[in-house]
Amino acid sequence: MRELAIESVWGDLCRVREKAPLVHNITNLVVMNTTANALLAVGASPVMAHAPEEVEEMVALAGALVVNIGTLSSPWIAAMRLAARRARELGRPWLLDPVGAGATRLRDAAAAGLVALRPDVVRGNGSEIAALAGLDGTTKGVDSTRSAEAALTQAQTLAARTGAVVAVTGAVDLVTDATRVCRLSNGDALMARVTGLGCTASALTGAFLAVQPDRFQAAVSALAVLGVAGEIAAEGAAGPGSLQLRLLDTLYGLDRAALAGRLRIG
Amino acid sequence: MRELAIESVWGDLCRVREKAPLVHNITNLVVMNTTANALLAVGASPVMAHAPEEVEEMVALAGALVVNIGTLSSPWIAAMRLAARRARELGRPWLLDPVGAGATRLRDAAAAGLVALRPDVVRGNGSEIAALAGLDGTTKGVDSTRSAEAALTQAQTLAARTGAVVAVTGAVDLVTDATRVCRLSNGDALMARVTGLGCTASALTGAFLAVQPDRFQAAVSALAVLGVAGEIAAEGAAGPGSLQLRLLDTLYGLDRAALAGRLRIG
Amino acid sequence: MRELAIESVWGDLCRVREKAPLVHNITNLVVMNTTANALLAVGASPVMAHAPEEVEEMVALAGALVVNIGTLSSPWIAAMRLAARRARELGRPWLLDPVGAGATRLRDAAAAGLVALRPDVVRGNGSEIAALAGLDGTTKGVDSTRSAEAALTQAQTLAARTGAVVAVTGAVDLVTDATRVCRLSNGDALMARVTGLGCTASALTGAFLAVQPDRFQAAVSALAVLGVAGEIAAEGAAGPGSLQLRLLDTLYGLDRAALAGRLRIG
Repeated sequence: MRELAIESVWGDLCRVREKAPLVHNITNLVVMNTTANALLAVGASPVMAHAPEEVEEMVALAGALVVNIGTLSSPWIAAMRLAARRARELGRPWLLDPVGAGATRLRDAAAAGLVALRPDVVRGNGSEIAALAGLDGTTKGVDSTRSAEAALTQAQTLAARTGAVVAVTGAVDLVTDATRVCRLSNGDALMARVTGLGCTASALTGAFLAVQPDRFQAAVSALAVLGVAGEIAAEGAAGPGSLQLRLLDTLYGLDRAALAGRLRIG
Repeated sequence: MRELAIESVWGDLCRVREKAPLVHNITNLVVMNTTANALLAVGASPVMAHAPEEVEEMVALAGALVVNIGTLSSPWIAAMRLAARRARELGRPWLLDPVGAGATRLRDAAAAGLVALRPDVVRGNGSEIAALAGLDGTTKGVDSTRSAEAALTQAQTLAARTGAVVAVTGAVDLVTDATRVCRLSNGDALMARVTGLGCTASALTGAFLAVQPDRFQAAVSALAVLGVAGEIAAEGAAGPGSLQLRLLDTLYGLDRAALAGRLRIG
Repeated sequence: MRELAIESVWGDLCRVREKAPLVHNITNLVVMNTTANALLAVGASPVMAHAPEEVEEMVALAGALVVNIGTLSSPWIAAMRLAARRARELGRPWLLDPVGAGATRLRDAAAAGLVALRPDVVRGNGSEIAALAGLDGTTKGVDSTRSAEAALTQAQTLAARTGAVVAVTGAVDLVTDATRVCRLSNGDALMARVTGLGCTASALTGAFLAVQPDRFQAAVSALAVLGVAGEIAAEGAAGPGSLQLRLLDTLYGLDRAALAGRLRIG
């Protein structure tokens, strides 16, 4: 079982590296640089574009679309909706990262409107997924104040209601499509001290969606790669600055042996 | 006296680490990532949000608000004003960083309008504070072409006129509330070669304002922590790239002994 | 010949370090931080400003203007046009980086409109320059899918038609003013795994344009410095994270001997 998982993850990573898929990101202003670098490190090709006039053309060129509402505003929400609709029409996989859902009405409305456009994957922390599932509205800004496990029921509800694969990240990550649940427990607590690693998880999932048609598997592979790379990067890191640098180096150089030796999945 | 200062700074840093206050930033596009990382490294919890529709709700969730006009535009200025007003109503401390005041009429007008909303702290370089005090309009872009000391009179004038604590950063940093003046002389010249460390000083001051009701003390503690951490980070740094990484690691790991051994304050 | 080139490049770098020219950037959201840091590392003084209300004043304070359409939108295009026109009126050198030209109609229209405002230098990858020359419209997002050499004819056509010096970067970089062609072959393949190093080439060219009135020479010097620094930074780098940090350190510390020992130019 675990052997099978390793093979799948490694195969997906090789495909990303070989195909270098173009990933169209409409993402937040905090993480644009770091998620672009993570995509490049893993072998994908990022493009950031948010003008309503061009997002439909750009998504048509891309292998996947990632929509992240971290620093949303009305003009950007309009562009996100245009791009998501076009992705749907073209059969391009797209992912929603509902950053800060539960914190403000604008975020709740934007996230709900985007969920209605049927993302293939939704990735958030426990608080965001709970808020999105409509069962709980307590979010402390963009922090996760709820473990992924505590949000499992809500994640399954959300998956069942929307048809999306839902990935909840935290100390343990969960991926569910309402029936199946996969748990990944790599990573390191220090990762929470680097801004936007959740957003990086979403961006990488976009890259894997572009090469792996099974979106449950794509989400699992992306979280596995990030978790293992983050764990390696955290070892010997003197703090969050070192971790951030080492994460890019590790994503770039990750080999089969390191993955196989560390992957904790079930 | 210095012993007292060390105790106060260290106590404030411990409170930031323990309480992990949410700091709402409406800041510039250049430093969003790096100031978020500095806030995380010091133990705070950053959120960046600038949509007029949500800033009032977001500031209500936060322990402090930081407004930075570095890459201002009309829609952002409107959001800054809404958020600052709401912070005032709620009694949340808020800080203004008037980046580039003196360089353009737009910046002067935006900064003056925000000062009228009574920030608890204003933090800038000598040129910006002088421009804001209305005594001098010579700013070379966003550079400090005037030492903090040379802007002391203007800083005191600004503090007296607005009721704000004014922090002027440079080779020597000053904090004044019109009557008292505190000087901090940690740091390193190499810090000027990393973009946005002034903005980081402002962001960290926001974190300290959220846990320390005495805003003069909060500003002193934030500048002390950044100055000492920057000085440690600069030692052995091969250049500004290394400094930036080491600064995050040092903010994360700063202990009482390092602070006590280095703090130069008077 | 090569000895002459080394002297020119080194002289230009010394002038940047001595004069610390203010470079006004209207650039994309992905690279704002990293290009500001590269400008600081090389000794220049960056300012990022995009509000239509202030760009004309800001460009008047600056030694050069850099316009980069990487994450363009209508309000930003309007500001870019205002700033470029003003730069022209004031005789300030300005550079256009047509990121993603060929990918969408919005980018093509924006780039064409800006080219009509007569940039002193246009810097792009082979695909972008080919698209801009109107001879070929196949761009894969913002990637270079065409070598610089393969775009030489188009670069010369573009230079002849617009009067701009055209710099095409890739494994080998080209600079042409329609008649002369200079080739630079420093750098390292790993540089393509760090986001925005093409944008950094543009930003640095802005700094050199501010101190070197011969814009062909300015472009050559900027690409020489970045190529040599990138090559040094890549040696021993464990991956793209390390490369990014080392590049800033190397730009900061680059000396005459390293430049002379490595520069490959012809």
